[in-house]
Amino acid sequence: MKHEIVNLSIDEMPKEWYNIVPDLPEPLPPAKDPEEGPSRIKQLENFYTKTSLELDASKERWIKIPEEVWELYVHVGRPRPLQRALRLERYLKTPARIYFKREDLSPTGSFKMNTTLAQAYFAAKEGVSRLAVETGAGQTGTAFAFSSKIFGLQCTIYFVRFAYNLKPDRATYMKMLGAEVLSSPTDRTEIGRTFLKKDPKHPGSIGIATAESLQDAASRDDTVATVGSSKNHVLLTQSIIGLETKKQLDSIDEKPDVMISCIGGGSNFYGFICAYLKERLDGRLKTVRFLGAESGASPRLTKGEYRYDFTEPSKSTPMAKVYTLGVDASLPLIRAEGIRSSSTAPILSLLRSKGMIDTRVYAIDEKDVFEAARTFLQVEGFLVAPESAYAVRAAIDEALEAKKKNEEKVIVFNVSGMGHVDFQGYREVLKDI
Amino acid sequence: MKHEIVNLSIDEMPKEWYNIVPDLPEPLPPAKDPEEGPSRIKQLENFYTKTSLELDASKERWIKIPEEVWELYVHVGRPRPLQRALRLERYLKTPARIYFKREDLSPTGSFKMNTTLAQAYFAAKEGVSRLAVETGAGQTGTAFAFSSKIFGLQCTIYFVRFAYNLKPDRATYMKMLGAEVLSSPTDRTEIGRTFLKKDPKHPGSIGIATAESLQDAASRDDTVATVGSSKNHVLLTQSIIGLETKKQLDSIDEKPDVMISCIGGGSNFYGFICAYLKERLDGRLKTVRFLGAESGASPRLTKGEYRYDFTEPSKSTPMAKVYTLGVDASLPLIRAEGIRSSSTAPILSLLRSKGMIDTRVYAIDEKDVFEAARTFLQVEGFLVAPESAYAVRAAIDEALEAKKKNEEKVIVFNVSGMGHVDFQGYREVLKDI
Repeated sequence: MKHEIVNLSIDEMPKEWYNIVPDLPEPLPPAKDPEEGPSRIKQLENFYTKTSLELDASKERWIKIPEEVWELYVHVGRPRPLQRALRLERYLKTPARIYFKREDLSPTGSFKMNTTLAQAYFAAKEGVSRLAVETGAGQTGTAFAFSSKIFGLQCTIYFVRFAYNLKPDRATYMKMLGAEVLSSPTDRTEIGRTFLKKDPKHPGSIGIATAESLQDAASRDDTVATVGSSKNHVLLTQSIIGLETKKQLDSIDEKPDVMISCIGGGSNFYGFICAYLKERLDGRLKTVRFLGAESGASPRLTKGEYRYDFTEPSKSTPMAKVYTLGVDASLPLIRAEGIRSSSTAPILSLLRSKGMIDTRVYAIDEKDVFEAARTFLQVEGFLVAPESAYAVRAAIDEALEAKKKNEEKVIVFNVSGMGHVDFQGYREVLKDI
Repeated sequence: MKHEIVNLSIDEMPKEWYNIVPDLPEPLPPAKDPEEGPSRIKQLENFYTKTSLELDASKERWIKIPEEVWELYVHVGRPRPLQRALRLERYLKTPARIYFKREDLSPTGSFKMNTTLAQAYFAAKEGVSRLAVETGAGQTGTAFAFSSKIFGLQCTIYFVRFAYNLKPDRATYMKMLGAEVLSSPTDRTEIGRTFLKKDPKHPGSIGIATAESLQDAASRDDTVATVGSSKNHVLLTQSIIGLETKKQLDSIDEKPDVMISCIGGGSNFYGFICAYLKERLDGRLKTVRFLGAESGASPRLTKGEYRYDFTEPSKSTPMAKVYTLGVDASLPLIRAEGIRSSSTAPILSLLRSKGMIDTRVYAIDEKDVFEAARTFLQVEGFLVAPESAYAVRAAIDEALEAKKKNEEKVIVFNVSGMGHVDFQGYREVLKDI
C-alpha cells in the first residue's frame, strides 16, 4: 500500500445498507409473546416508529439509504478512514498486519450516529416530535441529542446513573446539544420508581434505561422510543461501517483473517463485520474469523444460554431468541458501560449458535484492557473509548499470538468511539495518571 | 460544489512549508537585546534546537517538510477537510457562503500538532532527549506529549495552573501519553518560585509557563524548550493549514472575502491565512480581509502598542518588535486561556502595523462567544474549543452583517481545536448546561 491511511472518496460511499436476514443460514427465530400476560407484539407500535418496525421485519437484502441520511453521513465525515497500525505492528514486533477503522472520528465521538441519524429521520418523516432515548455509556445519547436537533425533534435522554455520575461531561454535552438529560432510574416512569424504591441510589443499567424510555414513549402520543443496539434495524443502519471497510481493504488487495470489535448489544460488531459475513455465508470466503471482545461482567456469547428471553427488565417488549445471562441478572459495574448488557442481538446470537462468531472475555477490573488503550494511545496517538479498548486489547492479543506462531495474519479491528470524555474511568483503573 | 465537504487526497498535501519573511512589505525588525544586562541573543542556543533557530532566521520562501514529518502529518489525518457550513448559512438566513477548516480533527484535538511533530523531530535529530514544554489551554502540551512519545523523547510540561485546575482531563491526557505534567508556577524553577512567593496559589499565565520551560531547558544539557506560538518557525510549520485551505478553495473555484481565526500568539491565524496573505502581498488578490478574533482580556492587536518588548516575563529571551500590552501586564482570566497573551507574533505585528490585519474584540465574560459555539454545535454538530469559539463568533457576526447588507460574501474560518475536554469552561459560562 502507498500510505498507511486508506480513504474512500465521498462518491465511493455505499448507497445501500446491507440486511443479512435473507442470507442467514436458517430463518431468524421470530420475536414472540410470553405464555402469560398481554401481547407485547401488539404493543410495539406504541413504542417505535413504523419504519423501524418495518425494517426489523424486512427480508430485503439491500435497502437504499434515504438521500437525506446519506447526505448527513457526508456531513459528519463519512466515509471514515481505515488505517494501518504500522507503529503498533513495529512496537509488538509482530508479523501480523493490523488495520483499524476510525468510527471514533464521528463528531459526537462514536459509531452511534450511523443509526441515530436514520432513526431521527424516520421519526421526523412520520410526524413524531419527540424522542425518548436510553443511553449507557453516553454515546447513544449524545448521537441522538445531535440527530434530534438536526431534525427539529425534542429529545429526553435516560442516562444510566452510574455512567451519568462517572462522566458529567457526557451529560453536559447532551444538554449543550439541547436535550433533556435524566439520571436513570428516574421517578418519571413506573419502572424507574420501582427500582428507586428498592434502592434510592440504584446505579441503573442499560436495561432499566431502555424500559424507562419505552414507558415514556407509550405514555405520550408525540413520542417514540429509540433503540441503541440489538434490533435488526439498528444492525442494518450500522452496516455502512463494514461496507466501507470492505471497499477499503479491497482497494489495497487485502483480506482479513480476523475481524475484531467489542460487543454489547452487537450493532457495532455486526456493522463492522457484515460485508465479510456475507462473503462467508455466500461461501466465497472460507477462513475469516469474527471475534467479539466481551467483558467478564456480561459474557453473554461466551457463557450465556441461547434461548427465548426478554431483552429489557420491564418485559414490555416481546421475547427474542438470544444469548442471554437472564434479563434479571445483576451484572457487575464496569467503566465500559456500553457493553454491559444481559443479551446480544438475535442476528448475532443465531450466528454464534452456528459457530460463526468467536469471543474473548476480559477481566472485570479492566486493567489489561485499559493498559492496551494506553499502549495504543502512546504508540499510534489515538485515545479510544473504554468500550473500544476491548477491541484494541483483543487485536493486540491476536497480534502477539501471530508473533508466537510467526503467522503473517491480517487483523482488522473497529475503533467504535473516542475516549475524550472518559478520563475519569481511565484514571480510576490506571491509577498512575 | 458537489458536496459540502472538500477533501484533498493524501498526494495533494503540500510538501513544503511557506515562509512569508522574504515576501513581507518591509524587512522584519530583528530581535534585539535590551540596553542593560547580559545578551539574550547569545542565550538562545541554551534554550532551543539549532534547527528552530535556523528556521527563525530563514529567508527561504519554501522549506521542504522533512519526509518523516510529512508522513506523520498523514498518520494524524492530514490533509484535513474544508467544510461548507450550509446549515449555519440557512440558520442565519445569510447570503454569505461560509466555510470552515477542520483542525479540530487532529488526534490530540488541535492544530498544535503541525508544529509539535516538527519540533520533536528537530530535537530528536539533534540528539536531544528531553523537551521542556509550556502550555496554556493544554493543546500545546497534549500535542507535545504525543510528539515526544513518537520520537522517544522525555517530556515535562509546565501547565498554567488556572487551566490545569479547570481541565483535569487535559493533564490526565498528557500523563496517559507518558509526559510529566506540572501545575505552573512550580517550585522547580527560579521564576516559578518568585511568583509562588508573591502568591502561593498564583493562577499562572502562558508567559510564566514559558519562562519556566526556558529555565528548565537552560539548566540541563539533555533538554530544549519548545515553542507553542509566535516565533517564525512555529508560524512556518503551521502554514500547512492555509496551503491546504487554498488548494481546497481553488478546487471549487472559490475565493475568500474574509478569513477568520482566533488570535493569541498568532500561529494558527498565520497558518490559516498564509497562502492568501502571499497572494495579497504579491498583488494578485486585492480584496481579502484577514480578521483576528481577540479577547477583551488581552486585545493586543486592537489596543496594544507596536514596539520592542520582551515576550515572556522572565525576560531571558531577546526583545521583539510586537504589538504588546506590556510583558508585565496582568491579564484577566478567561476560559480561552490559549489566546490570553501579552503580545502577538512579530510577523503578524508587522502586518498589523501596515493595516493588513483586522480584529474584532469580544467581552471578557465570554458569554456571546460561548453562545456562538453552542449555536454552531446545535446547527452543524461540531463542538469547538473555547479558543475556536472566538472564530465561530466572528464568522457569525460577519455573516449577519452580510445579511444586513445583502452581500454574497465568502467567509472562511479556522476551527483550531475541539472542545471535548473543555466542558467545565462551557458549564461555567453558559450556566444552563
